[in-house]
Amino acid sequence: MGQKQQKDLGGNSVIIRLEIRGDRMNFGLVANIVSSLGGDIIAIDTIHIGNDSSIRDMTVNVADATAVILITDAIGKIPGIRVVNTSDRTFLLHLGGKIEVTPKVTIQNRDDLSRVYTPDVARVCAAIQEDPIKAFSLTIKRNTVAVISDGTAVLGLGNIGSRAAMPVMEGKAMLFKQFAGVDAFPICLDTVDTEEIIRTVKAISPAFGGINLEDIASPRCFEIEERLREELDIPVFHDDQHGTAVVTYAGLINALKVAGKSLSEATVVVCGIGAAGVAISKILLSAGVMELIGVDKEGILVQGEDYANPIKTSYAGYTNPNRRTGTLRDAIKGADVFIGVSAGGMLIREDVMEMASQPIVFAMANPHPEILPGDIDDIVAVAATGRSDYPNQINNVLCFPGIFRAALDCRASAINEEMKLAASEAIASVIADDKLSKHYIVPSVFDQSVVERIRDRVIRAAIDSGVARRIPKEYR
Amino acid sequence: MGQKQQKDLGGNSVIIRLEIRGDRMNFGLVANIVSSLGGDIIAIDTIHIGNDSSIRDMTVNVADATAVILITDAIGKIPGIRVVNTSDRTFLLHLGGKIEVTPKVTIQNRDDLSRVYTPDVARVCAAIQEDPIKAFSLTIKRNTVAVISDGTAVLGLGNIGSRAAMPVMEGKAMLFKQFAGVDAFPICLDTVDTEEIIRTVKAISPAFGGINLEDIASPRCFEIEERLREELDIPVFHDDQHGTAVVTYAGLINALKVAGKSLSEATVVVCGIGAAGVAISKILLSAGVMELIGVDKEGILVQGEDYANPIKTSYAGYTNPNRRTGTLRDAIKGADVFIGVSAGGMLIREDVMEMASQPIVFAMANPHPEILPGDIDDIVAVAATGRSDYPNQINNVLCFPGIFRAALDCRASAINEEMKLAASEAIASVIADDKLSKHYIVPSVFDQSVVERIRDRVIRAAIDSGVARRIPKEYR
Repeated sequence: MGQKQQKDLGGNSVIIRLEIRGDRMNFGLVANIVSSLGGDIIAIDTIHIGNDSSIRDMTVNVADATAVILITDAIGKIPGIRVVNTSDRTFLLHLGGKIEVTPKVTIQNRDDLSRVYTPDVARVCAAIQEDPIKAFSLTIKRNTVAVISDGTAVLGLGNIGSRAAMPVMEGKAMLFKQFAGVDAFPICLDTVDTEEIIRTVKAISPAFGGINLEDIASPRCFEIEERLREELDIPVFHDDQHGTAVVTYAGLINALKVAGKSLSEATVVVCGIGAAGVAISKILLSAGVMELIGVDKEGILVQGEDYANPIKTSYAGYTNPNRRTGTLRDAIKGADVFIGVSAGGMLIREDVMEMASQPIVFAMANPHPEILPGDIDDIVAVAATGRSDYPNQINNVLCFPGIFRAALDCRASAINEEMKLAASEAIASVIADDKLSKHYIVPSVFDQSVVERIRDRVIRAAIDSGVARRIPKEYR
Repeated sequence: MGQKQQKDLGGNSVIIRLEIRGDRMNFGLVANIVSSLGGDIIAIDTIHIGNDSSIRDMTVNVADATAVILITDAIGKIPGIRVVNTSDRTFLLHLGGKIEVTPKVTIQNRDDLSRVYTPDVARVCAAIQEDPIKAFSLTIKRNTVAVISDGTAVLGLGNIGSRAAMPVMEGKAMLFKQFAGVDAFPICLDTVDTEEIIRTVKAISPAFGGINLEDIASPRCFEIEERLREELDIPVFHDDQHGTAVVTYAGLINALKVAGKSLSEATVVVCGIGAAGVAISKILLSAGVMELIGVDKEGILVQGEDYANPIKTSYAGYTNPNRRTGTLRDAIKGADVFIGVSAGGMLIREDVMEMASQPIVFAMANPHPEILPGDIDDIVAVAATGRSDYPNQINNVLCFPGIFRAALDCRASAINEEMKLAASEAIASVIADDKLSKHYIVPSVFDQSVVERIRDRVIRAAIDSGVARRIPKEYR
């Protein structure tokens, strides 16, 4: 526990730079304030001593960002002390951005220069002009994905705009490269217009071998993805939909094993029919779930009703075969599986007690789950969340690096349903049956075999389903 | 001479993979064919020996790509030999593209992951949302330039399309990073519509600290640059115009010193009034040239005439103050400086003999100069070209890395005329007066002090002209 806490605090190690007038700092007073507000002084470094003031950096461990604000406000009120600025490790990690664009070879002389640039590069250009498919071998198209967002549905923050969305997209690019060797470049769009987004992505597509759409608000995200899939010949993958769906289904495969249930006989309730909820429902139906019930603010979605959001009307048409009606409470009664992609606190322990025996609860609302695993651990077969501080984290990072690795390696023209199902099965397969347990249904994102397995199964699925435009040597 | 030739040939070292049926290769016949077609066999490697055939790689030095085609065609006709494929060092260098996107730090554990990605990254996003200028410190915007082309005027190849343009843009990105530490990402656009290009560049601009337009055909390039400069708050720089202009003026500063002439008294003829010609003329007028005469297919451009291309009509309005008329031949009579950005062979030795004493000839048409330096070396003060195989190469690589380094470091809102003039002066200043000579007026692109000097002078110019939004520490 102590260690865990230390680690968490380490995540919020803040450096507060102070200007202290006069010849010395009242350490006692500062230390009292910091500790009374939940902070822990780790170090003090003197940066500069002038004639009548000095600059010192104070490193403080804090529980969260709120504590930083309280502490700096309080210290700033001490006469003779001015808070110059505040930084923390997270912010330091982001300074100047998190990715860079680097040459694969160093240009050492005029000869090299003439090969990678004018005049000799003209021969390479001419070869591609003659046979455009060569762009896949002679340019970065072979290994490069665009991570595209309009900044309208970023994490739990909502519509924060394209500039503020960049740190997430850069983070994604880091993960693509580190986990799967995929070069990914973040493009944040200064428009939220559906047609404009579609036009822009199409216009910039020649350099890329795939498009990863990210954090685009629903329902716009559906049309954008659908249109781009139709109009481009490279894979277009909205990660908030399909990445989440792939990893959820992977987790569910293993959760059902732990609970001793079968997919085709399970009643599954999906709560929150946004981008992720729709995609999860679709992959589960493809995978063989027969009884799937969607619940949103309107209660259970049922065929025949006309919802304000056409996505929901359409959704009701292919789910809830027994036309059940009522609230979430009604839906969950007797259900085997609850999958939440809605909002914090939607579920209470009493709801879960009404589920079938050995219930499975995926409470994936971020950052606050529909119900905390700790509240139901004793009455469920398996509980999972989207958070890293509980077991069974349903994390998109398990999917997107590997699925794009596969798509690029076989020059897939699309990432289709078969490939997504294959990715889920690959992720689930990383944990051997005898290692599976209530608290271990999905592998660690740091497990290298995740990407390898996804790559293998997804390439096979792409070849079998006819979207692979290149058969890698080992599959010939 | 032998060494020079060897080096040039090295630039076209080709590997021809042959499948030879039967047990051995008729080396004599192959060698005769190769050498009769101008090739030189450097090595033969056996890749695979099977029961009734073998695979061998033959490395051949050739003068140009045509020779490769002739040789492979001829060898392919030898009974029992099949040409499997052909590769050369240039193509090998381009395999899979020339740049990659790499994380600045490795994510080693869950803790790191939570900082660079969800959930902790949300704090960084929120900070930028609150104060968008923080995008310059907390994202790649601080150091990243988009290299944008529509593929319509690539090298001497013309309109080759967006896919085929990528190798040039990737090469540019390499040079940006290697020479100036600037992260540059190539974006080739699948549209040639002016409005669509403007819209697209604006839409993707949030991630970038600058826009380098490249190889976009004239006259479209003028409007695109002008509009983007007005509508974006980051520098927009069409390198084919301004990069060429900056390096041309840099070369001219030193050429005038060698010739003992002054800028304000020189008569300058600019031949070829396209993107580069207009920009060169403008920078020379800003720099103080009084008598500048533009010549294009219509002959000398003169005020009052109405040309089909409105750029030329406008150009005639601010050049040729003495309203001279006639052909290139008339213009060049008595001129001190000829600057050609037109087409190969436009000039003959007799023209240059009609120029003023100590004439300066910049024959920069690519790949074939208006006149070869060897034809006039004995009658000019200085000759320069765009080619790397003659002295005095006027090469954009001398300008764009340094000028963007400067613009990014002071968060310039634009690259204005003052900054361009400063860049020219910086480049020219790299060669000390006592080192200047007829064959040495511009520094090598590998001279590290080029970028350093440009950075220094251009930042000062940006600060003085009011477009710097951040004053780097050393300039405060």
